[in-house]
Amino acid sequence: MITKEQVLHALSHVDDPDLKKDLVTLNMIKNVEITPSKIRFDVVLTTPACPLKGHIEHACRNAIALFVDKNIAVDINMTSHVAGPKGDQLPNIKNIILVASGKGGVGKSTVAANLALALHAKGAKIGLIDADIYGPSVPIMFGLEGARPKASKTSDGKTKIEPITKYGIKLLSIGFFTDPNQPVPWRGPMVSTAVKQLFNDAEWGELDYLIVDLPPGTGDVHITVAQGFPISGAVVVTTPQNVALSDAVRGIGMFLMDSINIPLLGVVENMAYFTPAELPDHNYYIFGKDGGKRLAERFNAPFLGEIPLVKSISDSGDNGLPVMMDEDNPARTAFLEIAGKVAQQLSIEQAKVKVVS
Amino acid sequence: MITKEQVLHALSHVDDPDLKKDLVTLNMIKNVEITPSKIRFDVVLTTPACPLKGHIEHACRNAIALFVDKNIAVDINMTSHVAGPKGDQLPNIKNIILVASGKGGVGKSTVAANLALALHAKGAKIGLIDADIYGPSVPIMFGLEGARPKASKTSDGKTKIEPITKYGIKLLSIGFFTDPNQPVPWRGPMVSTAVKQLFNDAEWGELDYLIVDLPPGTGDVHITVAQGFPISGAVVVTTPQNVALSDAVRGIGMFLMDSINIPLLGVVENMAYFTPAELPDHNYYIFGKDGGKRLAERFNAPFLGEIPLVKSISDSGDNGLPVMMDEDNPARTAFLEIAGKVAQQLSIEQAKVKVVS
Ligand SMILES: Nc1ncnc2c1ncn2[C@@H]1O[C@H](COP(=O)(O)OP(=O)(O)O)[C@@H](O)[C@H]1O
Ligand SMILES: Nc1ncnc2c1ncn2[C@@H]1O[C@H](COP(=O)(O)OP(=O)(O)O)[C@@H](O)[C@H]1O
Ligand SMILES: [Mg+2]
Ligand SMILES: [Mg+2]
Repeated sequence: MITKEQVLHALSHVDDPDLKKDLVTLNMIKNVEITPSKIRFDVVLTTPACPLKGHIEHACRNAIALFVDKNIAVDINMTSHVAGPKGDQLPNIKNIILVASGKGGVGKSTVAANLALALHAKGAKIGLIDADIYGPSVPIMFGLEGARPKASKTSDGKTKIEPITKYGIKLLSIGFFTDPNQPVPWRGPMVSTAVKQLFNDAEWGELDYLIVDLPPGTGDVHITVAQGFPISGAVVVTTPQNVALSDAVRGIGMFLMDSINIPLLGVVENMAYFTPAELPDHNYYIFGKDGGKRLAERFNAPFLGEIPLVKSISDSGDNGLPVMMDEDNPARTAFLEIAGKVAQQLSIEQAKVKVVS
Repeated sequence: MITKEQVLHALSHVDDPDLKKDLVTLNMIKNVEITPSKIRFDVVLTTPACPLKGHIEHACRNAIALFVDKNIAVDINMTSHVAGPKGDQLPNIKNIILVASGKGGVGKSTVAANLALALHAKGAKIGLIDADIYGPSVPIMFGLEGARPKASKTSDGKTKIEPITKYGIKLLSIGFFTDPNQPVPWRGPMVSTAVKQLFNDAEWGELDYLIVDLPPGTGDVHITVAQGFPISGAVVVTTPQNVALSDAVRGIGMFLMDSINIPLLGVVENMAYFTPAELPDHNYYIFGKDGGKRLAERFNAPFLGEIPLVKSISDSGDNGLPVMMDEDNPARTAFLEIAGKVAQQLSIEQAKVKVVS
């Protein structure tokens, strides 16, 4: 009869390519069960969005065949347990991910929303905060104009806000609390207070990832969020022009400041090129070429992917149905890949922290 | 011999189509000189950028021919005297024009820079303040990265900053005072102080128009500028998407607030469509169609013009040579037209103010 030790020995030859250790050392193998005809076990990855899931499963099968028995049936349950949270604050939220840009209009909200939906599609529990006080996008992007979250007082007098759930995502936007037709001529301190409430006073429940769509720039909201909450990492969105890149450089610079020190998970290049339907072989690099790639290289950060200029992305932002919800939209693939890479980078960052501590 | 009265009587039949009064009542006819063979006079318009200049000159000639003498030579000097300033503050600056958007990345800076250059090309004295603290564009757009304006102390201890002159425009950017590689994690009050200095502590000299490129949103800079200085009007730039329009609605709402009350000079629709060089008959409305026109209608404001998506505009923003400086760029025409309409609207607004007071 095959023993559990034999199975674990075999699986100790399988490395997690990101975390650069074997699955047994990483404590990822659980519930090993052995019958004369079959071996079954769980592989508990650090994220349901792991892009190497298939690769790791395949490597496990090979290891069992090689080191244990090449004919036995192997039943592997690929599952995940997202690590976190980073501190005692917001104990039910395992990871807070900032989506930032420096320049406005580069597609921060588009990436934030579709990243949230892509991580959800991969099985993670997701929240999304739209903290862009002067240009909130979530109400329009999710078809929730005029929606008002329920708020109640707890017995000890605290306000509790219930996020609105749409497409499986828990959402709060600063835009839910302002009149879409009225300006918000708020000075910094008011903005900071409002944004803090979205984190502290909402009933988020358990979340694997809370995505935060930041305003452009490096102002009050950034300082408040970056210094006030345990942030796991930041995704930077840029378009390829120099003027956008130079703002992104300052945005990244803020995350890397000693007093802030937030890991840069990578760079997304948006509006990379336009391909007319009538000229499928022509890519028009309207805003320049490869700016996002160069930015990622400059900061030695992962390049998370490029997204072309596509009318349906713009339309989807206006009509309440993000591209991730449109099964036929080819741009979905780009967002799914980006989501996988973001989750992967987070796992890598978390493994680093463990080594240090 | 023809008399001055005859000439003025003739010209009292010529209306300024914008101001809806005749040139004599408007006190626009100066220095009438009459010789047996020739009549000469100045027509002093309210702006050198008046798009009706040719039309008005033509109407003057017709009136002289009709009411005075159809064979006499007529020598008309079309000139202008820009009205202003609005109060005692900044007495040498006749008009302050805000360029705003709500949403970022819609082309505010592109419009502000080329509007400034177009008004200059028409003969006006121009200053440009780039007040976008977290995303200053003037240094890159005007090829002035790393430039530092001279600052000196006056005898009474005040700081005096010398704007940098490029392409005939006096420029100050918040970006001249910050390190392009360092973030500016400034909270609101610091931002307000910095922006005020650009107005108060700079040696602007005499200006017909001071254009202010605002940051996106309706935050500290907007409040500081709108309430702190005598503003003649605002130009709103938008792209055609709903998400951009809804931010623009809030931006406009701010100008129209009772406590702010800044005339809306009109709406520019940017990135209106893309026309591939290989398919000159195809306009791709990537971001939707006519959004800016609808916005202008909604607020009963002038539609100032649309600007297509053109690679050379993006390139020009990156390489220090705005399209207005590139004689061969077809996009110049759009900016010249917009500049004419802006100057025209300002004259109309100023005439309104006179009637009221
Ligand atoms: N790849 C793309 N193709 C076409 N339109 C896009 C793309 N990315 C974003 N957009 C549109 O561009 C505008 C700006 O994007 P948004 O996500 O709102 O930017 P930000 O949040 O950085 O201001 C929106 O109307 C959005 O729908
Ligand atoms: N009509 C246009 N065609 C192509 N690129 C444009 C156009 N208008 C603006 N851009 C580019 O788009 C980016 C955003 O424009 P910018 O003027 O910086 O916007 P904002 O000041 O509103 O943030 C810049 O890189 C600019 O060069
Ligand atoms: Mg946004
Ligand atoms: Mg700008």
